[in-house]
Amino acid sequence: MISGERFSVEYLLKGSKQEAFEKAQDICIEQTIEFPQDLVTKPLILDCIIGKIESFEEVEKGYLAKISFAVEITSFEFTQLLNVIFGNISIKPGIKVQKINLPESFLKNFKGPKFGIEGIRKLLNVYERPLLFTALKPMGLSAKELGELAYKFALGGIDIIKDDHGLTNQIFAPFEERVKYCVEGVEKANQETGANAIYVPNITASYDETIVRAKKAQDFGSKGILISPALTGFDAIKKLADDEKFNIPIFSHPAFLGSYLTCCESGFSHYSLLGQITRLAGADGVVYPNFGGRFSFSKQECIDIAEATKADMANIKPIFPCPGGGMSLDKVPEMIRVYGKEVVFLMGGGLFRHSDDLVENCKYFRKMVENIK
Amino acid sequence: MISGERFSVEYLLKGSKQEAFEKAQDICIEQTIEFPQDLVTKPLILDCIIGKIESFEEVEKGYLAKISFAVEITSFEFTQLLNVIFGNISIKPGIKVQKINLPESFLKNFKGPKFGIEGIRKLLNVYERPLLFTALKPMGLSAKELGELAYKFALGGIDIIKDDHGLTNQIFAPFEERVKYCVEGVEKANQETGANAIYVPNITASYDETIVRAKKAQDFGSKGILISPALTGFDAIKKLADDEKFNIPIFSHPAFLGSYLTCCESGFSHYSLLGQITRLAGADGVVYPNFGGRFSFSKQECIDIAEATKADMANIKPIFPCPGGGMSLDKVPEMIRVYGKEVVFLMGGGLFRHSDDLVENCKYFRKMVENIK
Repeated sequence: MISGERFSVEYLLKGSKQEAFEKAQDICIEQTIEFPQDLVTKPLILDCIIGKIESFEEVEKGYLAKISFAVEITSFEFTQLLNVIFGNISIKPGIKVQKINLPESFLKNFKGPKFGIEGIRKLLNVYERPLLFTALKPMGLSAKELGELAYKFALGGIDIIKDDHGLTNQIFAPFEERVKYCVEGVEKANQETGANAIYVPNITASYDETIVRAKKAQDFGSKGILISPALTGFDAIKKLADDEKFNIPIFSHPAFLGSYLTCCESGFSHYSLLGQITRLAGADGVVYPNFGGRFSFSKQECIDIAEATKADMANIKPIFPCPGGGMSLDKVPEMIRVYGKEVVFLMGGGLFRHSDDLVENCKYFRKMVENIK
Repeated sequence: MISGERFSVEYLLKGSKQEAFEKAQDICIEQTIEFPQDLVTKPLILDCIIGKIESFEEVEKGYLAKISFAVEITSFEFTQLLNVIFGNISIKPGIKVQKINLPESFLKNFKGPKFGIEGIRKLLNVYERPLLFTALKPMGLSAKELGELAYKFALGGIDIIKDDHGLTNQIFAPFEERVKYCVEGVEKANQETGANAIYVPNITASYDETIVRAKKAQDFGSKGILISPALTGFDAIKKLADDEKFNIPIFSHPAFLGSYLTCCESGFSHYSLLGQITRLAGADGVVYPNFGGRFSFSKQECIDIAEATKADMANIKPIFPCPGGGMSLDKVPEMIRVYGKEVVFLMGGGLFRHSDDLVENCKYFRKMVENIK
């Protein structure tokens, strides 16, 4: 009934050595049987179900415990995998998920991203440089105005033009109307430039409606979608990535996800949540705030995310890190030094600053990225 | 196009007065247009879309800013409401949602819980005392063993018998088999006692499967379901609560939700997340770790949750606070003093401790609750 196959999670624990070790012991129980161990008599539970401390060592920021769990307790469901990793212990202080180690046999239960880096490059027919990404805003523009913006961005050489994550189905730019105008704008520009720029609408919505909008987006000619998994549940990404009739890339947005990341003592490392979990869910690109912008991620945390998007994960494809958030053109050279070529640079408001001519600004951005090695 | 109707959010902000005020100004932009304000020309955006600071004052723990938003920017979608309240600013440190103020006209877009306190009391036919709640565990028991446990709990006088939140569809106790055995166990006990105890399976699963299991649970005779909204997205609760063909109570579980609550400087207050948002989604009862158990919620935070479950919310029904988590029988008197009558006491492992006879232990728990005024 139980195969013996186990996966493990590395937790950073706070407190004295004794306290940290007791936390590790507690995780073994709390994340599995949630029951007094001395009252358990069934051998299956004692031998297999309760988590096991595989290693425990002092590290720079506290103590690192590697705890293993039987793969069967996840029921091979993504929601239950997340629950075993961090369900109840999310309510206990001083526990941070650093890294998740999933064996190849377990990963085979997941399809992961359909496109990944390779698939997106093929879709865009761009292989040799970082990709350029921007967002349609501000909220309050009409669908037609957003479509005009999308045209200009694509004309200027931006590869991926997404909705701002706050655009849903507001009366001033309803979803269907917006998607139609923006697809049209990007296609018109593509005809002029010969490029394959794509429009990526935000489909984050209520339970069913997220799926309905994803499919409408595809039907209306969008070549990708944006979703905020902390609002829909991570499984919404998986549902779409696994759907054989849904064949456009998925970009994840970190809205509402920050609380798992901003507390230094608990939650998830950037590596595990924005890298490993987002990729396992099936996102082809992960949007996150870059260091030096208007958010608080450190350079190392951003490098960690990028590393997790490419680390070996058996059958799960590498995906694009998409750093952005309050970026300006002058940051591009450093970003290229840090991330290399396999990256999507997201620039929103910053594209409006260089001059009054938005198309020229986009061209300037594109040239910067093309010229720097 | 814009009605002028606005809702507001009270944010607790950290830093000096100047820093906190700048954070408040930033929230007005970040949660709406996410765009340099000086580049905006459209009057609709400047006058209506950008958030407005309604008040700003020093409080004990920092500065409290009340910021209002046009109701239309939520697109009257629950996911987008959450996004406006705390989407991008979840990634910025030192911002905590304290309280959400939704006008009656806006609340009318939400149905909220179907049952609430009144509906659950009617279902159980228990009106005069706190309700008794327990969890089936440990994980690793077979469906049949869990059914036998359910029988004993109900025989001992427990009103609501739920799955532990880690039971999903594991091979050792598959969902359908478990639901059948547990419904049968509780019904058999009800025939002996004349009571109306209910079995509440955990339906938290992947995107579609959550809804499938909720409906199976109802079809197989369960009289409630348990869901962890941080794993499914809050909208899964709303989807079920709004469904006219789904007519059993919904209990929410805090698994994976803790990161929004455990950091004192950012995230959500217990009042707003476990009280207001869970209730608005449509949960009839909210499970949370009680003070003095094995989790870290303070007495005041627990009182705040209970207060939010009952506070005036126009058409949205009051719901049951369900404190639990490492509780023992000796804590019951204090819990009754703190919560009064309109509460569900959740006790899991603690019920096994009083004596070797589980049925007798349940009867003892029940008597304690009945006898104390």
